[in-house]
Amino acid sequence: MSELPKLFSKIDELKPVFIDRLSKAVAIPSVSAEPERRPKVVEMANYLSEELKKLGTIVEFRHMGKQDGFEDLQLPPIVLGKLGNDPAKKNILIYGHYDVQPAALEDGWATEPFELVEKDDVLYGRGSTDDKGPVIGWINTLQAYQEAGIDIPVNLIFCFEGMEEYGSDGLDELIEIEKDKWFKDTDAVCISDNYWLGTTHPALTYGLRGVSYYQITVSGPGADLHSGVFGGTAAEPMTDLVHLFSKLVTSDGTIQIPGVMDMVAPVTEEEDALYEKIHFSVEELQNALGSKTNLFDDKKRTLMGRWRYPSLSIHGVEGAFSTTGAKTVIPAKVKGKFSIRTVPNIEMDQLDRCVIDYIDQEAKKLNTKNTVKAECLHAGNWWLSSPNHPNYVAAAKATKEVWNVEPDYTREGGSIPVALSFEKALNKNVLLLPMGRGDDGAHSINEKLNVPNYIQGSKTLGAYLFYVAAEL
Amino acid sequence: MSELPKLFSKIDELKPVFIDRLSKAVAIPSVSAEPERRPKVVEMANYLSEELKKLGTIVEFRHMGKQDGFEDLQLPPIVLGKLGNDPAKKNILIYGHYDVQPAALEDGWATEPFELVEKDDVLYGRGSTDDKGPVIGWINTLQAYQEAGIDIPVNLIFCFEGMEEYGSDGLDELIEIEKDKWFKDTDAVCISDNYWLGTTHPALTYGLRGVSYYQITVSGPGADLHSGVFGGTAAEPMTDLVHLFSKLVTSDGTIQIPGVMDMVAPVTEEEDALYEKIHFSVEELQNALGSKTNLFDDKKRTLMGRWRYPSLSIHGVEGAFSTTGAKTVIPAKVKGKFSIRTVPNIEMDQLDRCVIDYIDQEAKKLNTKNTVKAECLHAGNWWLSSPNHPNYVAAAKATKEVWNVEPDYTREGGSIPVALSFEKALNKNVLLLPMGRGDDGAHSINEKLNVPNYIQGSKTLGAYLFYVAAEL
Ligand SMILES: [Zn+2]
Ligand SMILES: [Zn+2]
Ligand SMILES: [Zn+2]
Ligand SMILES: [Zn+2]
Repeated sequence: MSELPKLFSKIDELKPVFIDRLSKAVAIPSVSAEPERRPKVVEMANYLSEELKKLGTIVEFRHMGKQDGFEDLQLPPIVLGKLGNDPAKKNILIYGHYDVQPAALEDGWATEPFELVEKDDVLYGRGSTDDKGPVIGWINTLQAYQEAGIDIPVNLIFCFEGMEEYGSDGLDELIEIEKDKWFKDTDAVCISDNYWLGTTHPALTYGLRGVSYYQITVSGPGADLHSGVFGGTAAEPMTDLVHLFSKLVTSDGTIQIPGVMDMVAPVTEEEDALYEKIHFSVEELQNALGSKTNLFDDKKRTLMGRWRYPSLSIHGVEGAFSTTGAKTVIPAKVKGKFSIRTVPNIEMDQLDRCVIDYIDQEAKKLNTKNTVKAECLHAGNWWLSSPNHPNYVAAAKATKEVWNVEPDYTREGGSIPVALSFEKALNKNVLLLPMGRGDDGAHSINEKLNVPNYIQGSKTLGAYLFYVAAEL
Repeated sequence: MSELPKLFSKIDELKPVFIDRLSKAVAIPSVSAEPERRPKVVEMANYLSEELKKLGTIVEFRHMGKQDGFEDLQLPPIVLGKLGNDPAKKNILIYGHYDVQPAALEDGWATEPFELVEKDDVLYGRGSTDDKGPVIGWINTLQAYQEAGIDIPVNLIFCFEGMEEYGSDGLDELIEIEKDKWFKDTDAVCISDNYWLGTTHPALTYGLRGVSYYQITVSGPGADLHSGVFGGTAAEPMTDLVHLFSKLVTSDGTIQIPGVMDMVAPVTEEEDALYEKIHFSVEELQNALGSKTNLFDDKKRTLMGRWRYPSLSIHGVEGAFSTTGAKTVIPAKVKGKFSIRTVPNIEMDQLDRCVIDYIDQEAKKLNTKNTVKAECLHAGNWWLSSPNHPNYVAAAKATKEVWNVEPDYTREGGSIPVALSFEKALNKNVLLLPMGRGDDGAHSINEKLNVPNYIQGSKTLGAYLFYVAAEL
């Protein structure tokens, strides 16, 4: 362990270089959702490739064809890399993404979004925390290893994609192709693409909820109707839909669909004991909401609501009146959208059956002449890892070394599908090791990464490589 | 009465002239909703003015200023006219509108919408039935009176507006200004701007429903939320809204708001007996709906549902996800829209109190931390005339004379606010005397007016003038 102080002081020394490297990355507006910026996404792939090659990494691009739904739009390359091939060392697969969310000054940014601006020890800019900061963080720590003359204790396998913010088009296919090729020697996976729970305490993340998305279509007349002429003589699809919607979940968040809660894994004593230690408060939730409309007033139940219980959200209605004003139309066909966040041990197929059967039954009770059809539009499974796995133990030791505290063991309410994809394809442990804070505003205006998170975060990644070599 | 056969044969003789006159009117795309077509609306006012002047009418334009919500868009003129000033004669006020709904070939029209096309005894074109056909019909019948050498038995007062299809901007103000001036000698009002109930039998219309439009605003967090991160920890406005919506009306159309049905006038034996005679079938409703999703299977209950009972329609939600696809947003603030069609003896203010108190109570039961606010966005009253008034007796005799049947006495489910405006301002009886058929498609593609409705309809207007002179 005597090498780590040397590594850390090299990282401190290189801080201006690291900030400059992130500046150059943020200056490339690699927005995957905007076809006209696709050349910028490719430019960012090239920049990353050059930085990796400077370390001695072997880099290959994988081209996954055209983007779905576009005539002639090539997907950006998936950047694969290998650094080190010592058969005596373990092989760590690093995933990250080099594309970013859209951003424009006029959305309300205080500074130019594609210019990294440092102010009061905070780095502002699109991609600073999601996910250019962490991706560049890997390059930083490896540069520090080399310049400090420390042997990198593992072989590294890189997989950086450029479509994460737009559905990871092509990634699952690539993982399937490369699982026995580029990725075949992988011993463990590390992903740095999520956030601390709050703003003060580092975290390791070992679980994610899944999501199953449903649509209820209610159709009646052949075309929209005038409510003056037809109101009171025709069965109205919107009336049926709101009755069905009202049967799904109560205002206190309780899911009303029979069978769903029965599938949820019970809380063990061990799990119950975990929550007390976690650094989080209901006030932090209220700050994030911008209101005091939290469902629960205690920390434990709030955290459980976020990551270990399912939730049901009604998102909206397609086909009804939806703008300002006062239109008196009777919509002929409405599509109600809702989704359920899923947790262990909900089975996706079984959930679909519960949901669709229930809606069919409730629709029958309405005794309507309109036609009701419920269906699942898409589903992604939940993911749960083991925080006792050596991969997590290594990350915990690294966190302790850098931050001088035990990490919070957290789960996320949202989904990061790639975690599950790697785990299933490679059958190796996947670690989520966040760099940024819970208030970084990943997809919002004024996205930021605090300088300590960037620099100490780069140290944490370096220390993780050190410990994982020993633990695995 | 001996003069009417002479009038009718002159009308038959002038049929080609009348169709040509309507052709010229339809060829002017006087779409009031499209600012760039405002000059065409003015052109139509000039055309109408010229045709009226050829009859000897004194015409004056009234300019009502700029259109609300536009920097520099003048309202089209309201065309006032007077034909005849014999103090021994009664004065009949004729209202109509010379503007039309938008139309474009690419919406699915079989023919050019602004070209009157005659096919199989039907005249197709935008405005043919709404409301250029009836407006030109008055000019036709007066021309026939004059060419046949028959003295017109009443003085005529005209009021033709050019903003009816876009909210009648300026009209109520004009009626207020002119009620003791241009309109001061009015003895009765006749409006030809609605339709027969079905396709075979002429009608007189003596009632209209009103409409009160409501909005329920539910607000919670400061901004839209990601359902992965916040689902299960935050009170969701959309959940509250669908519960409130579900308390308003059942799938069979029954309004659930206490107090509303108590205000509805009971069905008298006399009214009950009226429905049997009316020419209408549930099949006609099904044809109009393009489905068999009618609420009631008998004619009487269907007609009562359309015009003598209130109905409640849920129109949609502003602020929620409303397009195709599967977005997982939790909307921060949603505005639910619904309206109630009102009938005698519902009091608008009392209705607002019933609705808002009820929603407030139901919101309390939800026990939500979100904020709920219900309000009335706008309201227009119902209108009910007396079919026994001499104005109606005259129209019934005219109908009998031309069509050789008793008219159906109908009410409309929708609103025609000008009927109420004239009645209130002038305190004179208002008659709705439709020219077109129930399937004319006034606001749809392929709007049409059957040639018999146009020609016999012009005769009916002429006969009405004859009889109303005698009856009033
Ligand atoms: Zn990300
Ligand atoms: Zn992201
Ligand atoms: Zn009209
Ligand atoms: Zn109209």
